[in-house]
Amino acid sequence: MSKKKPLILVTNDDGITAPGIRTLIEVMNTIGDVCVVAPDTPQSAMGHAITINDTLYCNTVKVHENEPQKEYSCSGTPVDCVKLAVNEILKRKPDLCVSGINHGSNSSINVIYSGTMSAAVEAGTIGIPSIGFSLLDYSLEADFTPCKKFIKKMALECLEKGLPKGVVLNVNFPKLKENEIKGVKVCRQADAHWVETFDKRTNPLGKDYYWLTGEFINEDKGEDTDEWALKNGYVSVVPVQFDLTAHHAIRTINSWDF
Amino acid sequence: MSKKKPLILVTNDDGITAPGIRTLIEVMNTIGDVCVVAPDTPQSAMGHAITINDTLYCNTVKVHENEPQKEYSCSGTPVDCVKLAVNEILKRKPDLCVSGINHGSNSSINVIYSGTMSAAVEAGTIGIPSIGFSLLDYSLEADFTPCKKFIKKMALECLEKGLPKGVVLNVNFPKLKENEIKGVKVCRQADAHWVETFDKRTNPLGKDYYWLTGEFINEDKGEDTDEWALKNGYVSVVPVQFDLTAHHAIRTINSWDF
Repeated sequence: MSKKKPLILVTNDDGITAPGIRTLIEVMNTIGDVCVVAPDTPQSAMGHAITINDTLYCNTVKVHENEPQKEYSCSGTPVDCVKLAVNEILKRKPDLCVSGINHGSNSSINVIYSGTMSAAVEAGTIGIPSIGFSLLDYSLEADFTPCKKFIKKMALECLEKGLPKGVVLNVNFPKLKENEIKGVKVCRQADAHWVETFDKRTNPLGKDYYWLTGEFINEDKGEDTDEWALKNGYVSVVPVQFDLTAHHAIRTINSWDF
Repeated sequence: MSKKKPLILVTNDDGITAPGIRTLIEVMNTIGDVCVVAPDTPQSAMGHAITINDTLYCNTVKVHENEPQKEYSCSGTPVDCVKLAVNEILKRKPDLCVSGINHGSNSSINVIYSGTMSAAVEAGTIGIPSIGFSLLDYSLEADFTPCKKFIKKMALECLEKGLPKGVVLNVNFPKLKENEIKGVKVCRQADAHWVETFDKRTNPLGKDYYWLTGEFINEDKGEDTDEWALKNGYVSVVPVQFDLTAHHAIRTINSWDF
């Protein structure tokens, strides 16, 4: 008697037709029964946003013929997609949730802005083993092929071993050919931040507006960070938690005069 | 010679005219020079979303006459407001950023959905001591008066002592009268999550849509959590970090076969 196939929820933040999610679906179809619930439009940098003041639409779709997975496109954010999948669409809790493959980096502080990672975190909050994948290439023509074998291995390990309670994985791939990737490093999140330069323009009606443009500042010299791993040809894996308590700071704040 | 007044950035996610932020401005005006940069519309549950595919508008406004602070309303998210304030509007880095007072709870897992807290976290990522405040009362008629003395003390302590690097504060007030509040507890984030029930309806054109409605599930019995503190009449203060690395899980994941 063969083992029951795992149920895998696939989502992303670049939208259901993005090449990154199509690659992820392809890999997951070799492992289990796949259900895709993903945004109908790009939702990059949506963080952990959810839709509470607006309606949500959700449609069954078939992006490519002859693919076995069920697919739903949703008008909401990546986190909405996970909530809708788990509570409305799927008959049982999925065995695994994978998000991505994101077009662009979600390393270091980017994890807090990332819709891809927020979807993975949301699944984690309800006890689903969950991994977010990103490739350091924003191009729609990005080559996701080198990511495939790593993704498959990681998904299988995650299904077999599970993840520690309250932990999801943030996986980033360097923009390298398969034979150039040196391996996988389990890392901490580099201590970096963004400095923004706002591009100020004037619209045809004479009103000023801005485009947000940012510069990523990494002053963390550690060789145990995701930034270091990626710069040195490794796939980075950061275990991410959503208990944000800074336990080390409780004592200090307790000394305050309230 | 008197000491230079501190520069305080005030923001929120309920929008610049919400009673909560008006109370926060009132308290901050007794401490320093205040600049308000807040969303022009409600941005609740926007998490750490930023606006990257759209333009940002920002207008100087005067919500009430005879108030000393400078005020700007912004078309973006709470995090956009902080980025715009720090990089475009303010001449120098503020000494303190306060966000709120949110109309409704941001305790426990709500911290990851909260625009109020994401604004505070964003300021924290660029090294500004920062506090998010929330009152457990969603009503627009909520009474913020009991919060005032606590907020003033916390802001003064934060200005005097600073915060540990990489830490911001998540402060929640119970819905109680001033004489009913038992005091302040420094806590950890309760281990809770949301279970959603989607309210499915049909629009006048015959198309199905959903409203997200959720139930907060707290199975954490700890007496050192924010949920416990709030239920027992205390103001909760959780030190929050934005290094999401689950350091305790690195060893486990390192044992995986990649």
